[in-house]
Amino acid sequence: MNKLVIFGVGLIGGSFARGLKKAGAVRHIVGVDRSEAAAQRAVELGIVDEAGGPEAVRGADLVLLATPVAQTGPILAALLPWLDSHTIVTDAGSTKSDVVAAARAALGARVAQFVPGHPIAGRETNGPDAAIDDLYVGKKFVVTPLAENPPAAVDRVTDAWRACGAIIHRLTPGEHDKVFASVSHLPHLLAYALVDDIANKPHADLLFQYAASGFRDFTRIAGSSPEMWRDISMANRVALLAELDAYMAQLTQLRAQLAAGDGAGLEAVYGNAQRARRNWIEAIEAAEAPPPQDTAE
Amino acid sequence: MNKLVIFGVGLIGGSFARGLKKAGAVRHIVGVDRSEAAAQRAVELGIVDEAGGPEAVRGADLVLLATPVAQTGPILAALLPWLDSHTIVTDAGSTKSDVVAAARAALGARVAQFVPGHPIAGRETNGPDAAIDDLYVGKKFVVTPLAENPPAAVDRVTDAWRACGAIIHRLTPGEHDKVFASVSHLPHLLAYALVDDIANKPHADLLFQYAASGFRDFTRIAGSSPEMWRDISMANRVALLAELDAYMAQLTQLRAQLAAGDGAGLEAVYGNAQRARRNWIEAIEAAEAPPPQDTAE
Repeated sequence: MNKLVIFGVGLIGGSFARGLKKAGAVRHIVGVDRSEAAAQRAVELGIVDEAGGPEAVRGADLVLLATPVAQTGPILAALLPWLDSHTIVTDAGSTKSDVVAAARAALGARVAQFVPGHPIAGRETNGPDAAIDDLYVGKKFVVTPLAENPPAAVDRVTDAWRACGAIIHRLTPGEHDKVFASVSHLPHLLAYALVDDIANKPHADLLFQYAASGFRDFTRIAGSSPEMWRDISMANRVALLAELDAYMAQLTQLRAQLAAGDGAGLEAVYGNAQRARRNWIEAIEAAEAPPPQDTAE
Repeated sequence: MNKLVIFGVGLIGGSFARGLKKAGAVRHIVGVDRSEAAAQRAVELGIVDEAGGPEAVRGADLVLLATPVAQTGPILAALLPWLDSHTIVTDAGSTKSDVVAAARAALGARVAQFVPGHPIAGRETNGPDAAIDDLYVGKKFVVTPLAENPPAAVDRVTDAWRACGAIIHRLTPGEHDKVFASVSHLPHLLAYALVDDIANKPHADLLFQYAASGFRDFTRIAGSSPEMWRDISMANRVALLAELDAYMAQLTQLRAQLAAGDGAGLEAVYGNAQRARRNWIEAIEAAEAPPPQDTAE
């Protein structure tokens, strides 16, 4: 493509830029960031060719919003005056129903030009310096198209992510939000809750002193940005509440088994979990294994 | 010491043997295992000098029980007829109040010879082949002495663990069980519960397909042995129930904040957790850092 504009030149947006440049799939990239320092740093690092404002959207083939989901509406409203009819806008938000609602409110009928999506990739670092060209290689990009999106618009977005090495998946926004409430948003809430619970006990120092590697891994996601996860939790709260209620019902059942001394009941739950996790890990490893070599003579 | 007998020649017992041999701190080691194959393998690998039965305890300086905690009572009853008055027995169980109760029941007044303990170390593999000589280097060994234990008996146990490279900590059995209910047993139960919850949903395959690295780390401990964790959960259920109740109260409060749209409340919990975890990680890293070099000229 000729021109790409990226709002938010941190890890996610910057890595998209680097991946496309490495693939030779884009000619000119403009970075827009509420932090002038970040935008300048992205230019210095060669992630983007220039820094600009919302008006840079003019003439773009593709616009990526790689900003916190709560900023989707305001940014779309700011770029709308400069949005050409041939330009496609996409995003990288961790929630989709709220992003779609914000896009409909901001863009009206022109929401047909907005193709929502979510790359399933991340690192523990952030900012332009964290951006790398292979962040998306072998990772999933979930596109959640709207009924209004012409197929060519969806293709432009998925082609770009495919050029970055991503594997394209397709869900509806609602399906997406239920899936990620279950396997991502709920685990984050649970990890934050456990660390906060322990930190608030009078003997917290003693407890942390004996926490070991199992605790470190279990709570790694509680090291994530509280602002970002507040936004995700609020944006997806309907689906997250449903998952939390199911989990609390499960804990209530385990509590009853424990109180009743029902070791066989506990072991059934633990064993089912261990088996399911092992099957999942094996499926991941099979998917990540290199394809069999051609052994034809 | 002259003679050591180890019940259970797997990862924990075998690594204790290897650590002591490497330190030159023991002359002769006998391995006792309910699996004859494991005992023979431990001999082949040079972990122990010979395999034997409970009668091997005769003349031992130290006996280590490195078996599931539920076996503590039966093993102590089996070795009691061969227990010399100068022999000290210790264990490596993950729970302590139940072990102490079993020891009192099995040994009566001779419980003075039993010094309970818990090395805080592990790996994801098990059996004699998993045993390594540096498993305990820099790790904690928590000794939980009884009022009846003579100081010299406690010293014999802690000296042996120190020879394996462990750092000695001291708690009462009750303190130990509360601490580990909080930072180890509850997280295991929570991780098992989450994976089981997801695995039982009709669309489990779809959900697991989108689980990523955060989920993998959060649930790593759900890959642990269900039998072992059933035993630990049951053995420590009073303390575990108290921790589970506190955690469920915390989830109930978070649920109310989420339902009320209280983003600031959520962020306060998430932020407190992130800070507490960061402080904990920094404290670990400081403790693990090499001592400052002497820069005197």
